[in-house]
Amino acid sequence: MSNKRVAVFRKEHFNAAHRLHNPNWSDERNERVYGKCNNPNYHGHNYELIVQVIGELDPDTGYVIDMKVLSELIQTEIIELLDHKNLNLDVEAFKDLNPSAENIAIVIYEVLRSKLNSNLDLKIRLYETERNFVEYPVA
Amino acid sequence: MSNKRVAVFRKEHFNAAHRLHNPNWSDERNERVYGKCNNPNYHGHNYELIVQVIGELDPDTGYVIDMKVLSELIQTEIIELLDHKNLNLDVEAFKDLNPSAENIAIVIYEVLRSKLNSNLDLKIRLYETERNFVEYPVA
Amino acid sequence: MSNKRVAVFRKEHFNAAHRLHNPNWSDERNERVYGKCNNPNYHGHNYELIVQVIGELDPDTGYVIDMKVLSELIQTEIIELLDHKNLNLDVEAFKDLNPSAENIAIVIYEVLRSKLNSNLDLKIRLYETERNFVEYPVA
Amino acid sequence: MSNKRVAVFRKEHFNAAHRLHNPNWSDERNERVYGKCNNPNYHGHNYELIVQVIGELDPDTGYVIDMKVLSELIQTEIIELLDHKNLNLDVEAFKDLNPSAENIAIVIYEVLRSKLNSNLDLKIRLYETERNFVEYPVA
Amino acid sequence: MSNKRVAVFRKEHFNAAHRLHNPNWSDERNERVYGKCNNPNYHGHNYELIVQVIGELDPDTGYVIDMKVLSELIQTEIIELLDHKNLNLDVEAFKDLNPSAENIAIVIYEVLRSKLNSNLDLKIRLYETERNFVEYPVA
Amino acid sequence: MSNKRVAVFRKEHFNAAHRLHNPNWSDERNERVYGKCNNPNYHGHNYELIVQVIGELDPDTGYVIDMKVLSELIQTEIIELLDHKNLNLDVEAFKDLNPSAENIAIVIYEVLRSKLNSNLDLKIRLYETERNFVEYPVA
Repeated sequence: MSNKRVAVFRKEHFNAAHRLHNPNWSDERNERVYGKCNNPNYHGHNYELIVQVIGELDPDTGYVIDMKVLSELIQTEIIELLDHKNLNLDVEAFKDLNPSAENIAIVIYEVLRSKLNSNLDLKIRLYETERNFVEYPVA
Repeated sequence: MSNKRVAVFRKEHFNAAHRLHNPNWSDERNERVYGKCNNPNYHGHNYELIVQVIGELDPDTGYVIDMKVLSELIQTEIIELLDHKNLNLDVEAFKDLNPSAENIAIVIYEVLRSKLNSNLDLKIRLYETERNFVEYPVA
Repeated sequence: MSNKRVAVFRKEHFNAAHRLHNPNWSDERNERVYGKCNNPNYHGHNYELIVQVIGELDPDTGYVIDMKVLSELIQTEIIELLDHKNLNLDVEAFKDLNPSAENIAIVIYEVLRSKLNSNLDLKIRLYETERNFVEYPVA
Repeated sequence: MSNKRVAVFRKEHFNAAHRLHNPNWSDERNERVYGKCNNPNYHGHNYELIVQVIGELDPDTGYVIDMKVLSELIQTEIIELLDHKNLNLDVEAFKDLNPSAENIAIVIYEVLRSKLNSNLDLKIRLYETERNFVEYPVA
Repeated sequence: MSNKRVAVFRKEHFNAAHRLHNPNWSDERNERVYGKCNNPNYHGHNYELIVQVIGELDPDTGYVIDMKVLSELIQTEIIELLDHKNLNLDVEAFKDLNPSAENIAIVIYEVLRSKLNSNLDLKIRLYETERNFVEYPVA
Repeated sequence: MSNKRVAVFRKEHFNAAHRLHNPNWSDERNERVYGKCNNPNYHGHNYELIVQVIGELDPDTGYVIDMKVLSELIQTEIIELLDHKNLNLDVEAFKDLNPSAENIAIVIYEVLRSKLNSNLDLKIRLYETERNFVEYPVA
């Protein structure tokens, strides 16, 4: 008989600068599409990150995954990569990828996915501001 | 090959007065079912609205939908309709419909659904208070 | 030797309808000054109330005032007076007083001040929305 | 024709002490797995509980379920069971079950499931802290 | 007889990039004092700004100051100056001033002070993150 | 000429178990005064702590106090003392002192006051729950 499936969530945060810019477009089109988010000198956010992991409950520990282990994984793989960085200039993954909230969530997902046991499901929610946020993947 | 599907969320708010009342019932039954929410002189709330849109990521923009466009759509179609209004008296949709949180969410969904491209999925979460909220539609 | 002075805070909430309107002014002036807050059919809010009481710590109880007693006092004197009410129509204190956040805070202060022991100081903070709030009294 | 399905959510809270401990393990293994959560003298949390109920909208009331009824059910069945308690010592359900957030959510689910009409779906979200939370059941 | 004095608060927000750097110090000292906040490529924040205005209540309006007027003043004088900007590169006031939270609050105070009637008192609270914030002036 | 005075705030949190009990009283009186907070098996809270430090701005650093230094001080002196502890059993300061929110705030103040430079003012705000909190000292 299989164990019960439970979702667990861990919230972390990081601060970063970015700008939205498509190098294949004219400056005028970048300005029209991205508005003040295209500021060449960058702007920034306090990103709030919620990592959701779904899996079977281990009846011995009462855990799906040890939250200290999950928190340390996010710290090592994501926070050290993105915190107090300029996403466009300092982070390899965004050298040719626009650091929109959507793309940041996908990058975070792919990094964590490669580190988590494959019997665990993973979903990322990323708040760029309290009023704008994204979730990946979706069914 | 299809693009990645991502959910994006935009939070807005509006303030309104309402009362819960079923005109087909006696005053006594309205009072029994709705309690103080049946006050004939109305009461009110700060409604918090979260609009979720799911669709394919556009690789050129890094967006599912431009959040400024989504925010303006909610502003024009929903906030101007409901903000600082008496839902029972001032809003056509509630002339014959009880403005419960459930029904307000359904009305908001139907207005926005008719304005959004059909390849985008839509879900509404509406907070009547911090402790009472609803979501529509559900699978 | 006097005991240590400590401030204690209790947060409560109520929902109400209101409109801003000065009966001594023309409709046109009311509309110009109060804008959509002047809607004759009312609008409403979830008010968050923080009651601050300052006094000497009782060394026997470890309390300035028993928070259950303070919470019940707010419940009986304020929440029953204002919750799920139309402030303009249902509440005596606003029969001739504009129910602005400032005036609601003053009314709450005066009701609670008359019920609290005079060796306790009292201050009211009232949130009309998350972005608009007031405090009374101030030095 | 069936009615529209809507999800409604009610948020409640309780405060409790607990410790994580597996009596089948050595003290040394308990300490290694649970760290400071294994403190034999207990620690505690303000648990935030969100109960989600999904069902068909009743067109007469505008409700899936009366939120006062749902709130009273949670109060009677859950808050009185867990609030201001030592989960390990005072609550029968945890006599032989580790009170991890995951297991607390499952216990809450099972108590409420047995009290709710079977045509209503139920999901529990439990915040142990603002940064650690769980959800049960998941598909 | 003087009117009652009340404090009113308006919350606004802006997003910006910055770095902490003292040009009179060596790179090594800047790195030692400011750590990752000294990143030459900048990082950023969602700043939450609370503007407090204290004054006499106008008995005709029920207002200390019209919150729409206050909100528009903050919008015109502060948000347009700082939002989606690189504080070090784009904002004149920080050309020779380190954009620490303390200094940003002082700059905001001085701009708004020069625009507000002198019979109104003013205080600024600025959140750089949810966990780090400042207030100016203090007695 | 003296420098500008600014208040800076740092928010931290800890989880702990406690009970309210006065050993000089009968069980019956303890039960009457403290109610369920007197549970002999303890209950617990997620305490949110806001440490406010007021001082002159250092024009070289742009800081009143380095927030990393303040955060580490709170971590070393307070969080390690109180986090995941049973306040009554594990913490020397509460051996003969009731761990009410008021007394916990006073203990935190006295520990930090002895470690901070005397030209800095200090104030403690402690949230026992979102709805009950205290501040010490007050003028």
